[in-house]
Amino acid sequence: MTKILYLITGNAGKAREIKEILKTPLEASNVNLEIFNLDLKEYQGTPDEIISDKLKIACNQINAPVICEDTCLCFEALGGLPGPYIKWFWKALEDEGLFRLLAGFDNKKAWTECRIGYCKPGGEPQIFYGKCEGTIVMPRGNNGFQWNPIFQPSGYEQTFAEMDPNLKNSISHRFRALEAFKDYMLNNQDWI
Amino acid sequence: MTKILYLITGNAGKAREIKEILKTPLEASNVNLEIFNLDLKEYQGTPDEIISDKLKIACNQINAPVICEDTCLCFEALGGLPGPYIKWFWKALEDEGLFRLLAGFDNKKAWTECRIGYCKPGGEPQIFYGKCEGTIVMPRGNNGFQWNPIFQPSGYEQTFAEMDPNLKNSISHRFRALEAFKDYMLNNQDWI
Repeated sequence: MTKILYLITGNAGKAREIKEILKTPLEASNVNLEIFNLDLKEYQGTPDEIISDKLKIACNQINAPVICEDTCLCFEALGGLPGPYIKWFWKALEDEGLFRLLAGFDNKKAWTECRIGYCKPGGEPQIFYGKCEGTIVMPRGNNGFQWNPIFQPSGYEQTFAEMDPNLKNSISHRFRALEAFKDYMLNNQDWI
Repeated sequence: MTKILYLITGNAGKAREIKEILKTPLEASNVNLEIFNLDLKEYQGTPDEIISDKLKIACNQINAPVICEDTCLCFEALGGLPGPYIKWFWKALEDEGLFRLLAGFDNKKAWTECRIGYCKPGGEPQIFYGKCEGTIVMPRGNNGFQWNPIFQPSGYEQTFAEMDPNLKNSISHRFRALEAFKDYMLNNQDWI
């Protein structure tokens, strides 16, 4: 029997990327991934707290297996901020403004974090983590979404928004978190 | 009979300032203001949403009249951010780092916002608003707390942290919000 796993997001770009990366293991488990655009308030706090709370609320409301995704863009010079508040900063400042936020700091290092959270009714939230290190640069490129044009991963000359999506999906914070989720699916026959 | 109004805060500096400003009307209503250090999670969102949610939760948990206070420090160049997230930014960057956040922007204008929220059991949250316009400057002064050394209110040569507390308390965002709350107390005999 086909099962349904709900992906809680209102962001079409993220959904596309996640579906692409999870395609094979989901097909193997006979699971359809469907978007559920549930408008959930998020708490302030640490990223782990934020996604755990979101998972519990979503799983209770929908009463079905759910995955959530949370991304942080963390500037080393700002002690890891904007971090979980990046969406508000990106809305207000867009790429160039975010880049200018570091004008007063020599340290342009940054990292992206992705948390994929999974929960099924009656289960405990599971959190899978991925990280990608890099540098904040002047915006370049048109692929990707949100702040992708200002993030250049370590070891590459291109920003996320200049990369071929297949290359980006093979090194990104989201890919790494999803790989960890895939391992979980493979190692737990009754994961769903 | 003396009634008790609980001020939800863990910040001794704010508590001192609020007690000082509300002294007279509270005495007139025979109300004692007591600190209640309730560790509440705050939502992300607009400042009005954040304080309304906090008030409802606090009032339900304590089952007594409560006031909460929320302060935003808003940079015009950042579209009003850090705004309600200022406490995370101040913890990570302190005064000098916050000042450097504007190094890439010519516009150093800022404003402080205070919301005093009041709720009694069975009642609707009431929100009282105060604003103070000014400029972000290099940190100066030792009075005040948190980011007071980098905020210079319009029309003054001193930062909040250089001012005599009595002067600051007569022009601040918090004073103006508390004045609005005082008006409410005076115009509603059964406010508590």
